[in-house]
Amino acid sequence: MKSIVLLGSTGSIGTNTLRIVERFPRRFRVAGLAAGRNLSLLIRQAKTFRPRVVSVEREADAVKVRRALAGLKIEVLAGSQGAESVAARDDSDIVVSAITGVHGLRPTLAAVRAGKTVALANKESMVVAGPLLRKEAARSGAVFIPVDSEHSGVFQCLAKESRDAVRKVILTASGGPFWRTPLAELKNKTPEEALRHPRWKMGRKVTIDSATLMNKGLELIEARWLFGLDPDELDVLIHPQSVVHALVEMRDGSVLAQLSVTDMRIPILYALSYPERGEAVLPSLDLARVGPLEFHPAEEKRFPLLGLARRALAAGGSWPVALNAANEVAVRAFLEGRIRFGDIAGLVRRTLDGHSRTDCRAIGDILEADREARARAFEKLKLMQR
Amino acid sequence: MKSIVLLGSTGSIGTNTLRIVERFPRRFRVAGLAAGRNLSLLIRQAKTFRPRVVSVEREADAVKVRRALAGLKIEVLAGSQGAESVAARDDSDIVVSAITGVHGLRPTLAAVRAGKTVALANKESMVVAGPLLRKEAARSGAVFIPVDSEHSGVFQCLAKESRDAVRKVILTASGGPFWRTPLAELKNKTPEEALRHPRWKMGRKVTIDSATLMNKGLELIEARWLFGLDPDELDVLIHPQSVVHALVEMRDGSVLAQLSVTDMRIPILYALSYPERGEAVLPSLDLARVGPLEFHPAEEKRFPLLGLARRALAAGGSWPVALNAANEVAVRAFLEGRIRFGDIAGLVRRTLDGHSRTDCRAIGDILEADREARARAFEKLKLMQR
Repeated sequence: MKSIVLLGSTGSIGTNTLRIVERFPRRFRVAGLAAGRNLSLLIRQAKTFRPRVVSVEREADAVKVRRALAGLKIEVLAGSQGAESVAARDDSDIVVSAITGVHGLRPTLAAVRAGKTVALANKESMVVAGPLLRKEAARSGAVFIPVDSEHSGVFQCLAKESRDAVRKVILTASGGPFWRTPLAELKNKTPEEALRHPRWKMGRKVTIDSATLMNKGLELIEARWLFGLDPDELDVLIHPQSVVHALVEMRDGSVLAQLSVTDMRIPILYALSYPERGEAVLPSLDLARVGPLEFHPAEEKRFPLLGLARRALAAGGSWPVALNAANEVAVRAFLEGRIRFGDIAGLVRRTLDGHSRTDCRAIGDILEADREARARAFEKLKLMQR
Repeated sequence: MKSIVLLGSTGSIGTNTLRIVERFPRRFRVAGLAAGRNLSLLIRQAKTFRPRVVSVEREADAVKVRRALAGLKIEVLAGSQGAESVAARDDSDIVVSAITGVHGLRPTLAAVRAGKTVALANKESMVVAGPLLRKEAARSGAVFIPVDSEHSGVFQCLAKESRDAVRKVILTASGGPFWRTPLAELKNKTPEEALRHPRWKMGRKVTIDSATLMNKGLELIEARWLFGLDPDELDVLIHPQSVVHALVEMRDGSVLAQLSVTDMRIPILYALSYPERGEAVLPSLDLARVGPLEFHPAEEKRFPLLGLARRALAAGGSWPVALNAANEVAVRAFLEGRIRFGDIAGLVRRTLDGHSRTDCRAIGDILEADREARARAFEKLKLMQR
């Protein structure tokens, strides 16, 4: 029986994780949940899974949750400290880190410092704090198991291959809803159109990032730190069928690939079960029915944010922090109808153009770089707004 | 420096193996060569690679080879005993078993009994004597590394997965030159047409087996014993691009696949270098240029020999021996213009229909079953000949 702490329990990864826990009650139980502001869902989850502790974003909400869970012997915490306390609990075997955005960093770091096995879905942690997380994990013995489908694929392909044997790691991208859209039409795509992802059902932020390919850019940076790769060992291919999630090219020319049906429960189940493999919760992939598998280069002309992400990947230090912060501001502005789809990349570029690199060795440096980039992005946003 | 014994040095696998040895002279050297009747090529190979010993099929040929290699301090042996002696030499690290057909069995068995690492390209050994070879390998500590591209792919995908985690192993087949040919036209295809394989350049026998899919049937049986799988854990997909060589479906629904450009030197280099990976001798696979990857079911109506192979796979014992023997007789008869393409399956089926299963625990049983099936196949052939 594995005891699970779930950070970000009300999001897409969180709810899918709980579906798996529900399916295998003898293999997994929930020790703790941390959520944001979706109180009604958190309360329902707490009543169903009976963790020892839950945490919410705001103290005022904690009061409400305490009232709703009265008599169930569930401790209710609040704020980043609450989430960190849930993350570092002694009674968990695995911490699923699935809080979206840079907010996930502190709780993830707490889990790493506590030497946990961290099932990492919060890619921003690794993007903004890769070197720090690696250093802390080396010290505490924490282990990362990726939950992204692409990184889970890489992890599975790497298996017992030696680092020296790896020549290239290729992440696939579906290309999102616009990879065939005439370039001239791209810039005016609406949030509704951008949110209509052809393959994956995900949160709003990550769905927009999939349409711009920023998602893949962030994943390149994440892969760098998760697997200890050099920037030039990382690549992207557009693969509209989203059946092959990752490819690893070895030095002898052999390529290993990981495939599955398009459902987040597969990498989640893998991460929860590792080093064993759980029993499938979904029908098998039937390649004869899927139809031809296509692969295309990811053109930076169409996906300028991928180019900016590569620049940040190569520059390192505070660059990925600024990239991620500027993108979060830009995507929110797009979803709120304040800028056009085509302006997302422009806003990120303008923010990065003035960026001066710092080293980001400690969490304070990272949060400072994040704040600065957000402030700059908001300035640029004001100049661009319609 | 790895010392290599190469059984079947003048065939397709043999010559490709020597190209790799030539390319990496500091990593590999040749300790011994065994060949059949292609004396001029063997003599050239011996002069280039300077093994301590060579062996040829016939004693009369050994005399000629001794003359040609006089003064080079190369011992020249003959016959199955000669090949077995080369296979079991103390001074080799790896034995490449690449003699075509059931003739490869005795030398392969000699290498296994000597506890060698056996790079197995001679699939017939495993087809006719899988249980025996497994038992002998368990006793001697011999290890098999497959050289077939498909089995090399499976081997790489299995890596550190536990046996329990594997749900299905799928070998891909190009489908050969006829997989789109109207069924009515199939039966009269000529040897010239059947030898025009769209993807792989191989020996004549195996090229015909690729056109009938018997090759894939034999590979299923080989995979059963190489990887310890049950018959219902094995499957075939037609994949005309021949880029994906094998797929392994895990119990959690994840599928691992191995891909590479279509060149036998990749699995040969893998087998020679294992557990390390050598440096590529060929350009990388470029999936964006290869074009869409298709997968189709392998229909037994079109490929009746695959159905017969599955029957032999399930029946076990002497069935695979009889299958292989009947197919060798039938393919030779087809290549000699004595029967039509469509009669290959008919001849094998008629041979198998009268087959009564024996256990085949010892090499004598296997060779006896082989002789009987050949005799019966020749009888049936006489009745069918044009």
